[in-house]
Amino acid sequence: MNNKLSFSSDYMEGAHPEILRRLLETNLEKTSGYGFDPYSDSAKDKIRAACHCPDAEIYFLIGGTQTNATVIGAMLRSYQGVLAPESGHISIHEAGAIEFGGHKVLTLHQKHGKITAEQIKDALNTYNNDVNREYMVMPGMVYISQPTEYGTLYSLDELRHISKVCRDNCIPLYVDGARLAYALSSPENDVTLKDMAELCDAFYIGGTKCGALFGEAVVIPKPGRIPHFFSIIKQHGALLAKGRLLGLQFDALFSDGLYEKIGKNAIDNAARIRSALRDNRYQMYTEAPTNQVFVIIDNERMQHLSEKVEFGFWEKYDENHTVIRFATSWATTEADVNNLIMLLAECGV
Amino acid sequence: MNNKLSFSSDYMEGAHPEILRRLLETNLEKTSGYGFDPYSDSAKDKIRAACHCPDAEIYFLIGGTQTNATVIGAMLRSYQGVLAPESGHISIHEAGAIEFGGHKVLTLHQKHGKITAEQIKDALNTYNNDVNREYMVMPGMVYISQPTEYGTLYSLDELRHISKVCRDNCIPLYVDGARLAYALSSPENDVTLKDMAELCDAFYIGGTKCGALFGEAVVIPKPGRIPHFFSIIKQHGALLAKGRLLGLQFDALFSDGLYEKIGKNAIDNAARIRSALRDNRYQMYTEAPTNQVFVIIDNERMQHLSEKVEFGFWEKYDENHTVIRFATSWATTEADVNNLIMLLAECGV
Amino acid sequence: MNNKLSFSSDYMEGAHPEILRRLLETNLEKTSGYGFDPYSDSAKDKIRAACHCPDAEIYFLIGGTQTNATVIGAMLRSYQGVLAPESGHISIHEAGAIEFGGHKVLTLHQKHGKITAEQIKDALNTYNNDVNREYMVMPGMVYISQPTEYGTLYSLDELRHISKVCRDNCIPLYVDGARLAYALSSPENDVTLKDMAELCDAFYIGGTKCGALFGEAVVIPKPGRIPHFFSIIKQHGALLAKGRLLGLQFDALFSDGLYEKIGKNAIDNAARIRSALRDNRYQMYTEAPTNQVFVIIDNERMQHLSEKVEFGFWEKYDENHTVIRFATSWATTEADVNNLIMLLAECGV
Amino acid sequence: MNNKLSFSSDYMEGAHPEILRRLLETNLEKTSGYGFDPYSDSAKDKIRAACHCPDAEIYFLIGGTQTNATVIGAMLRSYQGVLAPESGHISIHEAGAIEFGGHKVLTLHQKHGKITAEQIKDALNTYNNDVNREYMVMPGMVYISQPTEYGTLYSLDELRHISKVCRDNCIPLYVDGARLAYALSSPENDVTLKDMAELCDAFYIGGTKCGALFGEAVVIPKPGRIPHFFSIIKQHGALLAKGRLLGLQFDALFSDGLYEKIGKNAIDNAARIRSALRDNRYQMYTEAPTNQVFVIIDNERMQHLSEKVEFGFWEKYDENHTVIRFATSWATTEADVNNLIMLLAECGV
Repeated sequence: MNNKLSFSSDYMEGAHPEILRRLLETNLEKTSGYGFDPYSDSAKDKIRAACHCPDAEIYFLIGGTQTNATVIGAMLRSYQGVLAPESGHISIHEAGAIEFGGHKVLTLHQKHGKITAEQIKDALNTYNNDVNREYMVMPGMVYISQPTEYGTLYSLDELRHISKVCRDNCIPLYVDGARLAYALSSPENDVTLKDMAELCDAFYIGGTKCGALFGEAVVIPKPGRIPHFFSIIKQHGALLAKGRLLGLQFDALFSDGLYEKIGKNAIDNAARIRSALRDNRYQMYTEAPTNQVFVIIDNERMQHLSEKVEFGFWEKYDENHTVIRFATSWATTEADVNNLIMLLAECGV
Repeated sequence: MNNKLSFSSDYMEGAHPEILRRLLETNLEKTSGYGFDPYSDSAKDKIRAACHCPDAEIYFLIGGTQTNATVIGAMLRSYQGVLAPESGHISIHEAGAIEFGGHKVLTLHQKHGKITAEQIKDALNTYNNDVNREYMVMPGMVYISQPTEYGTLYSLDELRHISKVCRDNCIPLYVDGARLAYALSSPENDVTLKDMAELCDAFYIGGTKCGALFGEAVVIPKPGRIPHFFSIIKQHGALLAKGRLLGLQFDALFSDGLYEKIGKNAIDNAARIRSALRDNRYQMYTEAPTNQVFVIIDNERMQHLSEKVEFGFWEKYDENHTVIRFATSWATTEADVNNLIMLLAECGV
Repeated sequence: MNNKLSFSSDYMEGAHPEILRRLLETNLEKTSGYGFDPYSDSAKDKIRAACHCPDAEIYFLIGGTQTNATVIGAMLRSYQGVLAPESGHISIHEAGAIEFGGHKVLTLHQKHGKITAEQIKDALNTYNNDVNREYMVMPGMVYISQPTEYGTLYSLDELRHISKVCRDNCIPLYVDGARLAYALSSPENDVTLKDMAELCDAFYIGGTKCGALFGEAVVIPKPGRIPHFFSIIKQHGALLAKGRLLGLQFDALFSDGLYEKIGKNAIDNAARIRSALRDNRYQMYTEAPTNQVFVIIDNERMQHLSEKVEFGFWEKYDENHTVIRFATSWATTEADVNNLIMLLAECGV
Repeated sequence: MNNKLSFSSDYMEGAHPEILRRLLETNLEKTSGYGFDPYSDSAKDKIRAACHCPDAEIYFLIGGTQTNATVIGAMLRSYQGVLAPESGHISIHEAGAIEFGGHKVLTLHQKHGKITAEQIKDALNTYNNDVNREYMVMPGMVYISQPTEYGTLYSLDELRHISKVCRDNCIPLYVDGARLAYALSSPENDVTLKDMAELCDAFYIGGTKCGALFGEAVVIPKPGRIPHFFSIIKQHGALLAKGRLLGLQFDALFSDGLYEKIGKNAIDNAARIRSALRDNRYQMYTEAPTNQVFVIIDNERMQHLSEKVEFGFWEKYDENHTVIRFATSWATTEADVNNLIMLLAECGV
């Protein structure tokens, strides 16, 4: 809609063309609503296969906040809260959706968006050893994101430790995968969908930020883990009438390696931007290996850049510097990245 | 997906082709998320114009249950409940979404899906005159549907009376227009969008059941009536990231009379089915003038019909009879209706 | 505070003098708060003994609405509602406390305040056989009162049938015993505390309306049935800091047959009133055998009576008649009843 | 119940004898329930007079958590949260009661239990200036305690500044006065009830921890500030049936300077303990001027002391030291304090 380069987020376009093609070619078919259609069935099968988890329950919801509120509300008992990094999406940017559902978000200090197994263990021990614990909110599950809000990744080893702490303490681990495609395609990633299915009690595979028009696929590896989840989804207003739209999109994403391709385009282009930033001696804010690139930039240069390119304003760093974000996606073109690299060189130190 | 005729509901296909065309042609454009895009702005302007209400606030949500829960939750105070017909969608088929939000649905007896101004007045008087009213749930707003769950319509006169009772008692009137296109195009309808904007405190124009992939447009005629509704939408998990998808669809629906055309095709075809039913001496359950046709049929004939055509099972009428529903939509073809009419004649009395 | 006779309710005085005596004599002792005191322990033991249920968990809460909201909220999952008679206290007179906690009250038609096992079975079957049940609120428990709002009693046989239906369907049965003393002391009652402990998943023994200053004792016959109920009580703001006040009162009520004595005084006096009403050919509204006497009276005579005696206005019967209630309690004196009987004779038909 | 000295809290006894005397002498009177009795009226008048606020609405609730949840839930809109010190009672020790009501507690760093006007202003500015604020929880009111959890006091000047920030930003200020008697009687205090009525939108005068059996008096200086608060109280299960018990207690507390006397006894004794601690070179944790005395003590000495005296374990200070609390009350005797002082001297450095 304007002529600036745009790297402000990964959900500015519609959907990957393959998804639109599928919507178009099936448009006039009549199917049952609410996910009881063959496309949803097919998508579920493909996701189960991708997770090497043939018994997993799969549910398609529409957006991330909705998915988090619905899953977390379903997994907690009324007297429990959810442990989450203080930078977690549920901790800040969901307008209190978790509290609206009656639960406290119990925040832990984050480092580059991540929390550790040790922190979770400490929080659980602190609760368990507090003589007043019954007057406090019990930590009832753990929420993390892969990748995190800062684009960083949990390693398989880290995820295993977190999972072990959760299982030792009989509380579920839930992973928000709003940008999971960009984790799965990162060369630094060593956590597969199979690993997630083994280590988590629930997680979601993001569609909205990974090439779909909308949609998030909740994976519950152990069937029956959340009884009556369908009713809970309906109660949360999260059940799409024309459920096949979700099925079709995920069926496309999990056919012919599309989800990986979408991730790879974003990752490759983010790597090129990161490399150009380093070449021009910009100061990175995090060394995140996914599709989000966080840079510390002085305000004057930020102003200058912003005349030519759209990016995300992340947070104030100090009086004279700001953290900004460039995000890539399935739709990022080589040409746009080339232009951005030229601009970054011009504005470099 | 099968070879039977299908009249089981009005949301079995994708979207009207014009909507898909718009999605396709704009797919690679980059726009801001969450409804801050030019298509949403344009759609809002067109809806304001259609309602003759230039100041109205318009919000796009995704589905009906979500819209009802969000609007009702926003309009009630914690100690209030919502008056609704006992057959209302919120009373039965939303899995307790209103109660999940903390509010009681105060049901009134319905006749063909409708309640009257008199009933509302009585309910308010009963509450106001009860010495124990402060120990009871205060009726804090009125919820009705146009058309109703039984396809019937409120006349302008009826709506005016209801609106007057609400205003006399300082409680808002909210109308669920999930199938509003089929009201607006009914020859028996005398309630325009302008009337609704004058008489209601909030209502929604249905997209999901009226030709869109999904989407409901909430109209708040008096700006500021629901402070911070945007945050409330987000808190309910009802904010679509790629908000332009909603804007685009409603922009299409409110261009070139598309919403009316969609309504008209459904209404015309429903009228032909109704006429065939009468010709063959079927017993109508209601004389609803919209896109839903309710018939009382003996179970044997129902069984026979169901081998050739899909329809909605509505409710048991008596031991030997059942109420069934045929629904038409924008996608209903003359050919399918002709085939249905032949079948109905074959199975007639 | 005035000179009229008063039969308007059973909680107009303070507490049975024996309870006050105990409060007074222990007033300066120092004990731990929140129920961790020897009086609470002793009261729990006595209640367990009275219920012949040595393993029961006992919790003391303060009032009835609070107890109902806390127990029901603890027993239901988010997608469930509670089956209750339409005249149940939770259905009408708790200002929407159950809905505030997120749950629908699923009302069943009552007869003299009671519902039947058959009705519950039908409601469960209707839900289970509805193809749309997952879009509806699941009946997740049963709430009844003993005695009911109309002073009637469930017989042991009736309670057994209701309990069986609940257990066959794996949903808990919860009995509101706000006036339980008046059931236990009724000559027509055949349900003991032992029976209740065997047949219910939770019930409460009323203190507020049965001689205490305040307090309700929740009995959970099977320990562990409600995990973390203590935290749930705290979260509901229902935990009394000086918990021993509750312990002391129930310790007194369950010592030396006090709870029975309190019941008996009320029952005997109610029987005398009932007898006088019959003698004077008043029309009874229900033949309830407990401490509440419901009479249909013409409005003129009601007006006349109300100049000399306070009673409860229950509901309009028809244009010219009203249902009124006389309630007796532990504090009702023979003299007052004699005076009432004289008045009733004067105003008789 | 044991022979140790006890300074573990200020609610270990029953009630001030004067309160018991009043309960006893009025026990057999019959009055209306739910606060519609002459004692409640009288208590309200006395509190209004003490606050120099003749129009104030007064409501009596039972306990602190209940009062906080009810008032805060009544004052916030669904999309708002409450600003509170991270050490606030609602932030930690109410088992998530605020979140159960749907609201986030937005915590601010505390110093000796207090937050500043500046911090509140910053939090409001941060919210107001955040481009993503509509996706976040809006700060909708301020919660502080007088005295704080650490026994410290807000000065009149501090309270005025906080009140001004709130009023400038149109959000209510609510003060938790669970231990208000001990603030009012502290020689260092310069905030009167009149000041509180002028500066707060709501506050409560604590009874439970200040000599009553139970009870908190909510003062709403500007009538109508919380519409339908009575129904909200009922909905929260916070309405006492025999409301006169609350009225009687507060009538006693606000007669003949009883509330001040109760405060003074505690304050004087706390001062003596504090003085003895200083004399014996104990390290104070805070210099709080009310009825709670916080000391840092090495673990060995703590162990030794705990054999002779009960005190509150507050928090771990470091590996070898612990923060402990001695609390005094209306019931603290000179003899007990003398004994404690001797013990402290024995165990001194």
